[in-house]
Amino acid sequence: VARWQPGAHGRLQQAAFELFEKRGFEDVTVAEIAERAGLTGRTFFRYFADKREVLFAGSEEFEQGFAEAVEGAPAAVAPLEAIGAGLGAVADFVETRREVATRRQQILDSNPELQERERTKLASLAVTGAEALRRRGVTDLGAAVAAEAGVLMFQVAFRQWVSEGGDGDLHQLIDDSLTELRAVTVDGSH
Amino acid sequence: VARWQPGAHGRLQQAAFELFEKRGFEDVTVAEIAERAGLTGRTFFRYFADKREVLFAGSEEFEQGFAEAVEGAPAAVAPLEAIGAGLGAVADFVETRREVATRRQQILDSNPELQERERTKLASLAVTGAEALRRRGVTDLGAAVAAEAGVLMFQVAFRQWVSEGGDGDLHQLIDDSLTELRAVTVDGSH
Repeated sequence: VARWQPGAHGRLQQAAFELFEKRGFEDVTVAEIAERAGLTGRTFFRYFADKREVLFAGSEEFEQGFAEAVEGAPAAVAPLEAIGAGLGAVADFVETRREVATRRQQILDSNPELQERERTKLASLAVTGAEALRRRGVTDLGAAVAAEAGVLMFQVAFRQWVSEGGDGDLHQLIDDSLTELRAVTVDGSH
Repeated sequence: VARWQPGAHGRLQQAAFELFEKRGFEDVTVAEIAERAGLTGRTFFRYFADKREVLFAGSEEFEQGFAEAVEGAPAAVAPLEAIGAGLGAVADFVETRREVATRRQQILDSNPELQERERTKLASLAVTGAEALRRRGVTDLGAAVAAEAGVLMFQVAFRQWVSEGGDGDLHQLIDDSLTELRAVTVDGSH
């Protein structure tokens, strides 16, 4: 098994995605994923806690990149703009994984338990963003509002991006949704 | 049974709340709720589809009041402000039911399935708000963004209100969170 390790993570992920897409997330077992990847169940569990985590691995990594970008945004920018800088880092992460990201979303859309898990992850992202804003000196309420609204705008942009097959410019879609948020708060001429 | 009808709904709700609080939502049966209310299971099902719906009944009513208030807001106001008018109608509804609303939230907080149902209801409220904004001539994206952000601000305010025991001014808390949202989008001096 040792010489397979370098690619084992990716092979397991690929096998899992194929099986989830073909037969539905619920009906696939870890043993089947491992077998399709030419690996053992034991190897699977070296990489993932369970089959669900194949779809959520790596989120700590981008959450940290998100927080660093929020904290590192220029001091003068508005809280929502600092969150926007963090979302730009998330978009960078997603855009290097266009195919995985769009296929993953389609798998999530087919299963309420996975959607619930995703909402929990997004709530965690908002909490992380709020913490980063508080370190910038933003008030508790302002930090919570900006982070939650920003993550919501990310979801709007991401859904649009997925609906276009992942070919669009996610950064631009995020900018558009943040711009729209500013507009609907102040502009009565819509 | 007929002469009990006028108060049956309220008695079933009261019995259900007491049992949910005492023993946890999962462990309570419809038969037990009916028995505590001095009614039959058949009567229960005349009012509620299942025990969960005891906690969600009436939401169509306030959703309609919300939509009417959004649509009826002055033509010149920003989309978010129109949503704010709708949330004011929701606050009116909640404030006539302070005790039920706070106890209900505590029951919801103890059960992930109920939280999921509540999120679905809130998502539905946002969709209703977006539809009302589109009838005011707001663009699809602007309507979705304003409605989702507005419902999010309602959640921020409502959580604060519940954490204060339901004694505070929910209208004011909603105004505060909407004001904060406007501030974090434009103000870099936070």
